[in-house]
Parts: sequence; C-alpha cells; structure tokens
Amino acid sequence: MKNIFKVKVYFGDTDAAGIVFYPNFYRWMDQATAELVGCTIMPTSKLYSDRNILLPLLETHCQHRLPLFYEDIVEIHSEVTEIKNKVLKVEHTFKRNDEVVAFGYEIRAWTTKQEGRLKAVPIPEDVKEAFGYPVNH
Amino acid sequence: MKNIFKVKVYFGDTDAAGIVFYPNFYRWMDQATAELVGCTIMPTSKLYSDRNILLPLLETHCQHRLPLFYEDIVEIHSEVTEIKNKVLKVEHTFKRNDEVVAFGYEIRAWTTKQEGRLKAVPIPEDVKEAFGYPVNH
Amino acid sequence: MKNIFKVKVYFGDTDAAGIVFYPNFYRWMDQATAELVGCTIMPTSKLYSDRNILLPLLETHCQHRLPLFYEDIVEIHSEVTEIKNKVLKVEHTFKRNDEVVAFGYEIRAWTTKQEGRLKAVPIPEDVKEAFGYPVNH
Amino acid sequence: MKNIFKVKVYFGDTDAAGIVFYPNFYRWMDQATAELVGCTIMPTSKLYSDRNILLPLLETHCQHRLPLFYEDIVEIHSEVTEIKNKVLKVEHTFKRNDEVVAFGYEIRAWTTKQEGRLKAVPIPEDVKEAFGYPVNH
Repeated sequence: MKNIFKVKVYFGDTDAAGIVFYPNFYRWMDQATAELVGCTIMPTSKLYSDRNILLPLLETHCQHRLPLFYEDIVEIHSEVTEIKNKVLKVEHTFKRNDEVVAFGYEIRAWTTKQEGRLKAVPIPEDVKEAFGYPVNH
Repeated sequence: MKNIFKVKVYFGDTDAAGIVFYPNFYRWMDQATAELVGCTIMPTSKLYSDRNILLPLLETHCQHRLPLFYEDIVEIHSEVTEIKNKVLKVEHTFKRNDEVVAFGYEIRAWTTKQEGRLKAVPIPEDVKEAFGYPVNH
Repeated sequence: MKNIFKVKVYFGDTDAAGIVFYPNFYRWMDQATAELVGCTIMPTSKLYSDRNILLPLLETHCQHRLPLFYEDIVEIHSEVTEIKNKVLKVEHTFKRNDEVVAFGYEIRAWTTKQEGRLKAVPIPEDVKEAFGYPVNH
Repeated sequence: MKNIFKVKVYFGDTDAAGIVFYPNFYRWMDQATAELVGCTIMPTSKLYSDRNILLPLLETHCQHRLPLFYEDIVEIHSEVTEIKNKVLKVEHTFKRNDEVVAFGYEIRAWTTKQEGRLKAVPIPEDVKEAFGYPVNH
C-alpha cells in the first residue's frame, strides 16, 4: 500500500538561495498523504463530509539531504508504516531520479470534529486493513 | 479611515530571482484588509462568528512598481475607497520608506454563508459609516 | 499558442472559509506562465541560465467568479495576448469542467539581471514569433 | 541568548479545517531563526552578502500539541541549544498565552555558496560565543 506522488518544483517554491524553501517539503507531504488516503480509503474530502474524519498532525519530521532546484521533478513515495489505536504514521521518501533528497514522516490522529472541537477516535479495522495492516483474531 | 499595516519581508517570501514572489503581495493585501476591518468594524473572526459575514473577493489587482528584497520593511496603507450596495473596494499602497513599491486593490462582497453556500447581502449602514461613508437622508 | 495547465486543489490551498485562499490563483498563474513559456520558448530556468532573462511582473489582475473547493480539478488556459517592445501580457482562464471560475492576466517585462539589477530589454523577434506574433517587414 | 518572536495568525494561514495549516509552523520557525540570528550575530541578509553564509536545513521536527486558530497571537521562543563543528540546533517553543501549542527544532549547517554549490564549513568561535557557547581554551 504505497503511493507515488509526483511534484514539479516551481519558481515560487524556491527562495533567494535558489533552492526550495523548506516548509514546502511539508506542504508536499500533506498532499502526498491526501493522495495515499485517497487511493487507499476514500478522498479525504469525502472522509470529512461522509465520516466526519480529519487527520490533524501530532508530530512531523524531515531529514533534508539534498537541495531541490527550480524545475526539478520529485517523486514522493508514501506509506503508512505504523498504526496504533487512534494514531497513524505516514513515511515519505522524496526521490529525484534515483537519489533520495529528503525523508520525512507525519504522525496523524484519526479525529472527529464535534461542535468545533477535535477529538481523536479509534481507527476502524477496515481502514487498518486497507492500509495493509492485517487484523488479528 | 485609513490603516497602516507593517510587514517585514522574510527569506521564504522571496524566490530564486532574489525578490519577493508576487502572490505574497496579495497575501499581504488580505492581511491588511483584515487589519483595516478589525480596527474599523470588528475583528473579521468575530464578523464571521457573530454576524456570519465573510468578505470573498470579486476582483483583485496590483501594479508592481519596484521589487521588494529580503528584510525590507513595508508599510501597507489601506482604505475603503468605494462602497456599492453589496460590494466594497479596498485600496492598498505599499511603501518602502517613502517609495511606493506597489499599488493594489481588492473588490470584496459582503457575504453570508448559509448551508455551505455564499450569498452577497447589502452592506449595513453602520458599516458604511464606520468606513467613512456618510449616510444621506 | 495556448497552453493548458491542470492543477488540483489541495487542503493547504483552502482557508477557514472552506474555499481557495485567493493569492493561490496568482501562484497558479505564475506556474501556468512558466509552463506556457516552457513549451513555447524554453524552460524558464534555461531562459535565465542561458539568456539571463527573467520575467518580473508589472501588473496582475484577477476576476474571481466562483469559489474553488478542496479536490477541485482546474484547467488554466494561458495565452500571450499582447506584446509590446519590452512587455508581454499573458491571459489565464481558470475552468472547472466547463465553468469559468476565474479570469486573470499578468503583464511581465522581458528583463535581464546585471550586477543584481533588473533591466527591461526588447523582446527578440524569434520569441514574438514563437508566441504567435507575426513579424511585419 | 533567547529570542521571542511574535506572530499573528491570519486567515490565509488556516485551512478548511479552520485551523493553521501545519507547514506554516515551519515557515514561522524559519522566520524565528532569522530573528534570533539577526539579534545575536547580524541580519541573515548581511551574513550572506558579507560573509557568504547561508543556513540550510539538515533536519526539522515539530510536535503539534494544540491547534492554532485565526487571529491567535503566538510567541515563538527560540534558542540555539547545540553547536557541533559545522552544525547548530535551534529549538522553538510556540506559546499562546501560557500554553505551549507546539515545540519544534531545526538543525542547520553553517554553509558557504561557491559557484552555485553549497558547502558546510566550521562555525567560527565568535559566532559560538554570541549564541552563548563559551569557548574552552
């Protein structure tokens, strides 16, 4: 259950040092997670409208190994690598050609929004299975 | 009823050409309008939570006269210069020291959100007055 | 000499009103212009590295007709509609399915960067022709 | 050698979930580091123009404890907590009133740019001292 999400670096993604401004790596991780959830479970818009589920962040991390430049094409390989009761970890490997340029992860909570308040709830078994986590009986 | 909103240019606001990436001028106009409305009427968060009013854009424009560089300090002078029934125009002059670096405007609708749908409604008289528009009897 | 550039709206492109935060329309116009120049002349990175040409903005404009929502797919139809001596105008039509959601333009200068200073220079004839402007003799 | 950098959350910083879109925490950390370096050593623009030093990221991390909302005022407390030969760690604590809403760090390399290539170099003793690291003889 991996997904590959391709992004192209545009001028506005760079800064005056001529390389990608680093918060963009997280913007792309967020997009890559949306694509991964979208092709594994359902579009995250539908996850929210139909099931009232959001996936806010608990922890995020990135190792920035190589700079990215304007017009680079990057593949983001994303995978859910851990699921606990209410929490999941998504790992993202950024590749330019065969080079790993960055490696990051996001830890997200399976969360409902009720009366404007966010509350983490257990991840359903079918979702775990869809991410490739066998349910033990 | 003018407001002056000060911004500092950070590294992430620039691009590989070494100058401010232009959509940031609009991001700053949006902030400057929030400040103008905030000090004239009420904070826009409260305008939404208490009166269910949002101010979506109908038209936006900017003349980019001079580039802005990293660590420049800019003053944005903002003013409502036109009010029609449901629509208002906010003009923004960007100044670095005494130089005008950019001049833009936003045309926004006075809008309610009902069942997820946006609908423009007439601007109340007290709001017109607060922006400096005398009510004629 | 039109180009169609497709974008998908991600969560980070929206704001608390649930619709696209408007400066993103300009970010996408900038990307759409890069794609148009890229497929008509040469990649803008190469235009800078080989010919020392940048395309800074003189004026930008957008009519925002309809809001865009999370996961919308948008086609941006871009075309150079005017060329003067040192200046060109690029028009962008944003379409969701067959609906025009926004219409914008950018006026850009054909510019060299020498010793850190930007200077507009005449647009070469081959570039005008490539954009579909016949050279009159 | 701590610095406190204050930011206000604007509408464009939020997403459709009504809370701050998380990459903005990293954008603010980058700004907070620029402010810390600026008041401790020299403005980072000058560090680049005079000493040819950039501070690219090796690793970044954030614990997101509480969501931030539109118009929240946040104080970012920043401090260099580790210095190795060519590398420094900056820690950032995000506070809203007295609540810690996020805690992050950045590991950055002391880097020169020569012929377009980035190369990490040892951090000078005066810089270490300025950040509060006594030089042992």
